[in-house]
Amino acid sequence: MKNKNIIPKETNFSAWYSSIVSEAKLALYTSVKGAIIFLPNAWLIWQLIKEKIDNEFKKIGVKNVQLPTFINAHDFIKEVKHVDGFAPEVFTVNTNQFKLTNKCCSQNSNNSNDLTNKNNILDDLLVVRPTSEVIFCECFKKILNSYNDLPILYNQWCNVFRNEKNTRPFLRTNEFYWQELHTIHQTENEAIMQTLQTIKIYKKILKNELCMPFIYGEKTINERFAGAIKTFTLESLMPDGQALQCCTSHYLGQNFAKAYDIKYQNKNNYFDYVYQTSAGLSTRIIGGLIMMHSDNNGLVLPLNLAPIQIVVIPLEKNNLKINNFVENVLKNTKNKYRVEIDNSDKSLGYKINNYQIQGVVFIILIGQNEIQKNILTIIQRNKSDRIEINPINLKQFLKEQGKNYQKQLYEKATHFFESSIIKVNNFNEFKEAINQHKFVEAKFKQSPENEKKIKELTGATARCIKCKAKKSDKCFFTNEQATDIVYFGRSY
Amino acid sequence: MKNKNIIPKETNFSAWYSSIVSEAKLALYTSVKGAIIFLPNAWLIWQLIKEKIDNEFKKIGVKNVQLPTFINAHDFIKEVKHVDGFAPEVFTVNTNQFKLTNKCCSQNSNNSNDLTNKNNILDDLLVVRPTSEVIFCECFKKILNSYNDLPILYNQWCNVFRNEKNTRPFLRTNEFYWQELHTIHQTENEAIMQTLQTIKIYKKILKNELCMPFIYGEKTINERFAGAIKTFTLESLMPDGQALQCCTSHYLGQNFAKAYDIKYQNKNNYFDYVYQTSAGLSTRIIGGLIMMHSDNNGLVLPLNLAPIQIVVIPLEKNNLKINNFVENVLKNTKNKYRVEIDNSDKSLGYKINNYQIQGVVFIILIGQNEIQKNILTIIQRNKSDRIEINPINLKQFLKEQGKNYQKQLYEKATHFFESSIIKVNNFNEFKEAINQHKFVEAKFKQSPENEKKIKELTGATARCIKCKAKKSDKCFFTNEQATDIVYFGRSY
Repeated sequence: MKNKNIIPKETNFSAWYSSIVSEAKLALYTSVKGAIIFLPNAWLIWQLIKEKIDNEFKKIGVKNVQLPTFINAHDFIKEVKHVDGFAPEVFTVNTNQFKLTNKCCSQNSNNSNDLTNKNNILDDLLVVRPTSEVIFCECFKKILNSYNDLPILYNQWCNVFRNEKNTRPFLRTNEFYWQELHTIHQTENEAIMQTLQTIKIYKKILKNELCMPFIYGEKTINERFAGAIKTFTLESLMPDGQALQCCTSHYLGQNFAKAYDIKYQNKNNYFDYVYQTSAGLSTRIIGGLIMMHSDNNGLVLPLNLAPIQIVVIPLEKNNLKINNFVENVLKNTKNKYRVEIDNSDKSLGYKINNYQIQGVVFIILIGQNEIQKNILTIIQRNKSDRIEINPINLKQFLKEQGKNYQKQLYEKATHFFESSIIKVNNFNEFKEAINQHKFVEAKFKQSPENEKKIKELTGATARCIKCKAKKSDKCFFTNEQATDIVYFGRSY
Repeated sequence: MKNKNIIPKETNFSAWYSSIVSEAKLALYTSVKGAIIFLPNAWLIWQLIKEKIDNEFKKIGVKNVQLPTFINAHDFIKEVKHVDGFAPEVFTVNTNQFKLTNKCCSQNSNNSNDLTNKNNILDDLLVVRPTSEVIFCECFKKILNSYNDLPILYNQWCNVFRNEKNTRPFLRTNEFYWQELHTIHQTENEAIMQTLQTIKIYKKILKNELCMPFIYGEKTINERFAGAIKTFTLESLMPDGQALQCCTSHYLGQNFAKAYDIKYQNKNNYFDYVYQTSAGLSTRIIGGLIMMHSDNNGLVLPLNLAPIQIVVIPLEKNNLKINNFVENVLKNTKNKYRVEIDNSDKSLGYKINNYQIQGVVFIILIGQNEIQKNILTIIQRNKSDRIEINPINLKQFLKEQGKNYQKQLYEKATHFFESSIIKVNNFNEFKEAINQHKFVEAKFKQSPENEKKIKELTGATARCIKCKAKKSDKCFFTNEQATDIVYFGRSY
């Protein structure tokens, strides 16, 4: 039984995505352009991802903090590249201008005069954080005294805001949720090691929890984080052939430390600037998760991240024998998995259909037949055949099949992923591959100008650098000696 | 050994509070007026409170969601009382006005013209949520179809924003964190029951987790939530004699449902408006927690909420025998408690002092003497004598003493609380009691005008209604027949 409200993936990928978001009850648009409501299923997926990342961060001594959303505009503009990078998309709050009253909006006359005086505008202006480097710098400056205090590894889970023109649920919204890790260190080497360790954690999460294959590398100058010296990224490829930047880890050097004066007393009693890193993974990954695994029957999620992992459907209502059987079967399962029992009046077909849309991994059917034969009938999200098992084996079945299920998702995604990377030697091959919605691997002589030209001509951007080129390698675009092997693709 | 940076509670309560916040490394001010950074200890306290509340909410079927921070200004002004209540303190974002650039702030000329045209201002204006009733209404309107969908119990953990004039860490800041529960129901009775059930959960959390005594009652008309029909509150009294509103639970009736058109198809196929509730508990409670239990040695926290519950201090460094002993002692403790081992170079006196400031409940000392005698020397946060126990009994000791410790905090706070409630019969007694920083219990004829007069004359407000008055009771203020027994007090 197909869900008529889900548009086939092959017909219109973008419409398919929207229909999954809506039919699986993940998100709603609101009357504010580009803002979405995270319904319980989507928010739980995010909370589960949060738990996994928090566990990994805890192991390396990261502490969670919470910093204010509003940033003083004077402070915000101190790091030149940073403000240039974010200026077009920041929201601002004017603390001293509008007074909202019922049914109208009156303007404070004192301050309307100030509008003509540009020097004063900045005094009253707060930037709504697009990222929190600036306030973390303020925090570090205040708490840091000596080398004994270093390293400091702080993380925050929060909402950030960017005024985006084209928005899509999870993938690009005016407000989104993320973790941002900010660390400060005594040496350049230690900070770079942290940047790489963070990426290692992200790799583990993406592979083991999200079952998501990716390419890994450093960003080109053009694509670097505003204010960073190096940006590392994990990039995945969606079934429509568009690249998704899954997460980034930045080595900031002393750029921010010098702009915001973050110094400490070193072992020799001199003052030194710290070396800094930051890194983030956002709710955009939920968009990737949906696109990567789901099908025309609805959401497909890794077992670890499914809001409901198991649903039990008793085939008769108010049947004491069946209810007892269900109770018995779930005794040891309830504490280990997210389980629901559906006793509602709806038809069995509707129920199965609905739970498949929501990405429930195991549906267990229990009726007279099951009790007589002492079996459980199980429908697994990625299999068409029903499975019958002895209730005694449920624990073992869930453990083994759960593991297999995750593995199958990862293998299926990897198969697609690997077949989507194409090596090209010249610009014609490049254009063809991009038009076929592939990830392109090309020898390239790094040049921000040429990256811009390539983008104008093909819509593709440099996703990341795979490795250095050999001396004999020629740039696919200029035919000059190549500097790097670079992945290109169109991106979200 | 006293901490010199902690100002004695008796000398200056307000300065004592600030010194605890700073010395226990709970929060930092930022350059944005009224905004604070939650350092790891404070944020962990909040996360622990969150866990307790989430567990209780889960039991009654509440689901967590996440809604946007920005509210359309046109939407915001629909419920008249609500907007009047919040208008003076909302921050607004103008989506179409300021463009921030490096080292200056340019004004978009198109839109500066709009400033003279007041009708257009609202179009571009977003309200930064002071609370989320308005967006929850939008959400409910979109997802609600029939009576089968009801009740819906949604909660969100988020930041909210209010432009406050006088701010203090945790107690009153421009941005704070809370949970806001929003529920919709078929009947008035069911909604009122939910309002009371929510208060029951808060009571449990305050008593069992925060060890905080309180009075409970309905708010007077004057003090009601903007847009509510009934507001219930738990109010505690701080050692300086000021009342703290700990949390509130509101019955909203159909006020919002009618303003925002939240209808559903009932069993008879007619359309009905829902009955609604909302309730919240915020990070302000951390301020209450600090004030209620802490002393001149620093923070005192309930065991359940202490960021570090146990610190082990080995009395010699790099002593293998001691390290093994520590390892052995902690084997079964590490998984159940938040434990740290301090191997740093600092002096023992500094360490003990520092952990007492941070509110660590048990400090365990282990040296040669302890190993020889096979004992643990334990310093408990609220006891001056050191305790010696056999390591075998540690598990039992922590369980029993942990329970006792919580009980002692609650009893100490309750003793103060109960001695601070004074019954008065006339306005002279009332003024005297308020000036003595007491909670006043008084027979009162409800009147918003007289509440305002009392506030002007004494600074005291009606905290909540204890119960109905007897027919023979006379109002302490007007000497007319009293309607209610009301608690008054000065408040944060």
